[in-house]
Amino acid sequence: MPRYKATIAYDGTDFFGWQVQPGKRTVQLELENAVNKMAKNPEEHLRVQGSGRTDARVHAMGQVANFDLPFNIPADSVRKGLSTMLPYDIGIKKVEIVDDDFHAQFNAHNKTYRYRLSTTQYTDPFKRNYTGHWGRKLDPALMQQAIGDYEGEHDWLSFVASGFQQKTTVRTVYRATMIEKPEDDEIWFEFTGNGFLYNQIRIMVGVLLEIGSGSRPVDDIPRLLAAKDRQQARFTAPAQGLYLMSVDY
Amino acid sequence: MPRYKATIAYDGTDFFGWQVQPGKRTVQLELENAVNKMAKNPEEHLRVQGSGRTDARVHAMGQVANFDLPFNIPADSVRKGLSTMLPYDIGIKKVEIVDDDFHAQFNAHNKTYRYRLSTTQYTDPFKRNYTGHWGRKLDPALMQQAIGDYEGEHDWLSFVASGFQQKTTVRTVYRATMIEKPEDDEIWFEFTGNGFLYNQIRIMVGVLLEIGSGSRPVDDIPRLLAAKDRQQARFTAPAQGLYLMSVDY
Repeated sequence: MPRYKATIAYDGTDFFGWQVQPGKRTVQLELENAVNKMAKNPEEHLRVQGSGRTDARVHAMGQVANFDLPFNIPADSVRKGLSTMLPYDIGIKKVEIVDDDFHAQFNAHNKTYRYRLSTTQYTDPFKRNYTGHWGRKLDPALMQQAIGDYEGEHDWLSFVASGFQQKTTVRTVYRATMIEKPEDDEIWFEFTGNGFLYNQIRIMVGVLLEIGSGSRPVDDIPRLLAAKDRQQARFTAPAQGLYLMSVDY
Repeated sequence: MPRYKATIAYDGTDFFGWQVQPGKRTVQLELENAVNKMAKNPEEHLRVQGSGRTDARVHAMGQVANFDLPFNIPADSVRKGLSTMLPYDIGIKKVEIVDDDFHAQFNAHNKTYRYRLSTTQYTDPFKRNYTGHWGRKLDPALMQQAIGDYEGEHDWLSFVASGFQQKTTVRTVYRATMIEKPEDDEIWFEFTGNGFLYNQIRIMVGVLLEIGSGSRPVDDIPRLLAAKDRQQARFTAPAQGLYLMSVDY
């Protein structure tokens, strides 16, 4: 059984996230249906292993997953075959043959996420599913000043939603940057780290927006990290602005 | 009853087009609901008059419509009020108070449409509802050479879908241009004219794509115009690539 690694883009709008859930349309479900169809419906159901979950309405430009097929098919034929079987809101960007022990979740070194924020007062109907929107006035300079405080190894207990299951909440953020896109009336926040907890990035963005609006001091991030208190950072930025951009191995 | 002129954007994906139709979700229906709610549900149902219809899945960046309200409200308050009452896939860009005899359809001098074509082999899931997609290889130089043949006053009988109801099929195209957007893997076709018939632009784009693919000669447009035969140009480019950009008065 050769193992394949697929790089996948999806528009999260009409999905209940990545993970298979009974009775829900999820990305993993659609991929497993396509892979099993391509394998001519084998007796044992083939699984698709992703690098990690994404929530309902969260998008991906570069999610990574692995799966096995019971016979050898060239990687690009797998890409083309899956593409014809998948719905239009999932795109297969690349398929590669990998070592039998490749694991999309356990072998991931780091992940990069982007958060797209729309800054206009007028809510653009074409962006409603693709950006977060913040009605209040923002001072980008304050957010630019604060965002670097996220970089480094920290205990992110103040930045995790209830319901997380990991043993430790210590993670490292290698890079946290803010890019202004005035021509598109957007601000992009980008984060690269060795792993992120449940809702961590959406809470990190929420804190930045409160800083940019003046409702939190610009130096509040080190205090929040030190507090290790899930009650302190309560605003979670909306899911539809978040994109899993890439996973590095 | 003051008369208002509204400039409207909408994501056509989830609409059965502009025009009210029994049992269907349309843009005009949503606007009339909002206007009547804003007017505190008057005894006589208030109508919203658009500059013209758009088909199911066709988008607008600058549709124009007029309506009356039974009492005086400042234009920008009407914009804000409608914006809070409308669904997220309709955006009100501007509201102005106009003369009582302003009519969004009859007073329109010209309209500009854009057709967004995605040129990648890989079908981007984020573009599935927002661009047309053409799987075959295209030579942009051929389309660039041909598109100017659309300019001028012509009888467009070869470029209208069956079911049209206009008395004459003569219309003038003032400007027909093609813009390559290699950074986005897109080609944009833009057309300004004094009016367009049912499906006219989608058929015009279809002919250009056939020219670009080599399945029609590059000088075929003058022949098609002269033929005045609805059987000759049969391919209609998909609705989701089409945008009503602006209406001039």
